[in-house]
Amino acid sequence: MWAAYADAAVILCCPDKLRGSATAAEAAAALARGVRAAGVQAREMPLADGGEGTLDAVIAAGGAEVFEVLTVDALERPLQVRVAMFEGGRAVVEMAESAGHVEEAARDVMAAGTVGVGYAIHAALDLGARHVTVAAGGTGTVDGGIGALRALGARLLAADGSELEGTAAGLLRLAEIDSSGLDPRLRGSLRIAADVSAPLCGRDGAARGFAPQKGADPGQVEELEAALGRLAEILGVDPATPGLGAAGGFPAPFVALAGAEVVSGAAWVRETVGFDAAMAGARLCITAEGRVDRQTALGKTVAGVVEAATPAGVPVVVVGGTVEPDGAEALYDLGAAGVFGLLGQPSSFSEALTSAETDLERTSRAITRLFARFAGEISKTD
Amino acid sequence: MWAAYADAAVILCCPDKLRGSATAAEAAAALARGVRAAGVQAREMPLADGGEGTLDAVIAAGGAEVFEVLTVDALERPLQVRVAMFEGGRAVVEMAESAGHVEEAARDVMAAGTVGVGYAIHAALDLGARHVTVAAGGTGTVDGGIGALRALGARLLAADGSELEGTAAGLLRLAEIDSSGLDPRLRGSLRIAADVSAPLCGRDGAARGFAPQKGADPGQVEELEAALGRLAEILGVDPATPGLGAAGGFPAPFVALAGAEVVSGAAWVRETVGFDAAMAGARLCITAEGRVDRQTALGKTVAGVVEAATPAGVPVVVVGGTVEPDGAEALYDLGAAGVFGLLGQPSSFSEALTSAETDLERTSRAITRLFARFAGEISKTD
Repeated sequence: MWAAYADAAVILCCPDKLRGSATAAEAAAALARGVRAAGVQAREMPLADGGEGTLDAVIAAGGAEVFEVLTVDALERPLQVRVAMFEGGRAVVEMAESAGHVEEAARDVMAAGTVGVGYAIHAALDLGARHVTVAAGGTGTVDGGIGALRALGARLLAADGSELEGTAAGLLRLAEIDSSGLDPRLRGSLRIAADVSAPLCGRDGAARGFAPQKGADPGQVEELEAALGRLAEILGVDPATPGLGAAGGFPAPFVALAGAEVVSGAAWVRETVGFDAAMAGARLCITAEGRVDRQTALGKTVAGVVEAATPAGVPVVVVGGTVEPDGAEALYDLGAAGVFGLLGQPSSFSEALTSAETDLERTSRAITRLFARFAGEISKTD
Repeated sequence: MWAAYADAAVILCCPDKLRGSATAAEAAAALARGVRAAGVQAREMPLADGGEGTLDAVIAAGGAEVFEVLTVDALERPLQVRVAMFEGGRAVVEMAESAGHVEEAARDVMAAGTVGVGYAIHAALDLGARHVTVAAGGTGTVDGGIGALRALGARLLAADGSELEGTAAGLLRLAEIDSSGLDPRLRGSLRIAADVSAPLCGRDGAARGFAPQKGADPGQVEELEAALGRLAEILGVDPATPGLGAAGGFPAPFVALAGAEVVSGAAWVRETVGFDAAMAGARLCITAEGRVDRQTALGKTVAGVVEAATPAGVPVVVVGGTVEPDGAEALYDLGAAGVFGLLGQPSSFSEALTSAETDLERTSRAITRLFARFAGEISKTD
């Protein structure tokens, strides 16, 4: 009886990446192997939150033509990135590709900017895109988006009228933006899928909340905080608006000057890959991320899965490489059915990175066995 | 509907110790906290396999009067140990107390013996015991039980007729045993609850299988292997008999000379603490041990729980600090519902020891939530 039930069941494996150890696709495949080893059907659906891996997730869902375009990285070194083009001229570019963290040795937050993101958007428009979604997250930049703005035709002016570079250093001296030359194709055609709902300024803002992990020292953090405040004044936006502070403040000028829409990256990815329909057809979702902590419940992929599936009556199990107690607690508050650590043995951080796929498979197998077994127990007694 | 079901359910928390981090009682309490945090009733039943913690487990089940008696440790240094006395003159002593591993600095496998175990048995008989169960496991000795035999009245003779010490060094020179002075109260009154079913000799025997972890070097291992073979000849026992090799070969002379019965320690503990009745009244068992590996399925506590509960239709979830893939596989073959690692983050071995109770609680909470949630899912659809 319950065996037949288990046979008919499908478990949706819908993890984010585990940074440094598995892409979302690799993690989904590992979870699915564990599900199948326990005799239950699995469906793989890698997810993302707007940060690194977002393009992979939406491309994996199918329907995209992928173009390689030439642009530059956060330090303006030449680089190829992808533009995914979907039906109806809808393009997706990922900031983590053209403005992601650069190698440790070259890291210089003041010299970094989003010029390359601007070129990528430009390339997408030249490829015929009528609408561009910018996956905004996983960047090494805190330039308030002015690099991309400049690459797309705006002029950045200092108080003395001299023209500025599209970097954080430029942002510090910014007094005026001349947007008369801004590419007119941008107006109304830009969506920013942000990995966090951070505001431009304040404790959780682009500078104080995120610049330290991008290499800014405390003095630089405060310089950037002040500069982002001045940027808000120049643009006429409220620096407390949620989302404007994602990806180093990237959304701010595009919202103000081109009518861009900022959305939750996690929700946008779920919608784009058809999560709701797949989830509704599943009896259980298993999701995963590298670290479950207090930040997790604030819009990260796994929290979004819990929030989307729980009201639909589909239980969600979350697996994490690191599970902080308050992270698990917050996910339980959202309705998670279970939150498990994935490690099979005492391991250093680097060892844990190496064993992630094996650990995901082993853990999802155990979860699936419980699913099938508990189901059977109930069927037999009801 | 399923909430009512979950309310009525009891989960039996029946772990072994996690060596170095939690006693079985502490582990059971931690698992139970996790179960209760998920809103389900828990019953705590610490278990053991005949090794360290066996006395704690049987005392925790109630009905014992506990006496402290003076004896010696494996290196014959004075020491107090416990004798648990149950109704009907049934006593229990634990070898791990009087012949357990000594501190690293003093470790000397050739100088170690079970003399102190003999004194403890003697004390139990003097306290009025008519039957003594010796929990045999967790020892630092490989003396073939001759230390205890000597303490209980036998004479150990070398080829030249000189009397030998009750140690591994004595065993190497043993040519004859004069059992005429052996305490007559022993006959038919001794049960040996062994933590492993190892034979006296061979690859999995007391020397080759276990002496290295007691500090024997390869040369000593082979000397001990030969000496245990000669002991079998002297005693007229088959060195391949399962169980004779537990606790450094302790059972061999007592089986041969006093009609002792060797039983599975894990099964005996379960019987003594009333496991079967508690399990039959539970909807789920959660058990745990420090390390789930290939040895686990060969008679360890958690394997015994799986083997006892599975035919009764009660699912068993096993939680381990370290989960080796072949260990999990073997438990699945026995019918385990799920095998989970308990770590919540990359941790060194010593960090993992520190966090074991928190990790057990977190993991059992997640398991219990799945139990309740999956139950609900089924009830709703059936």
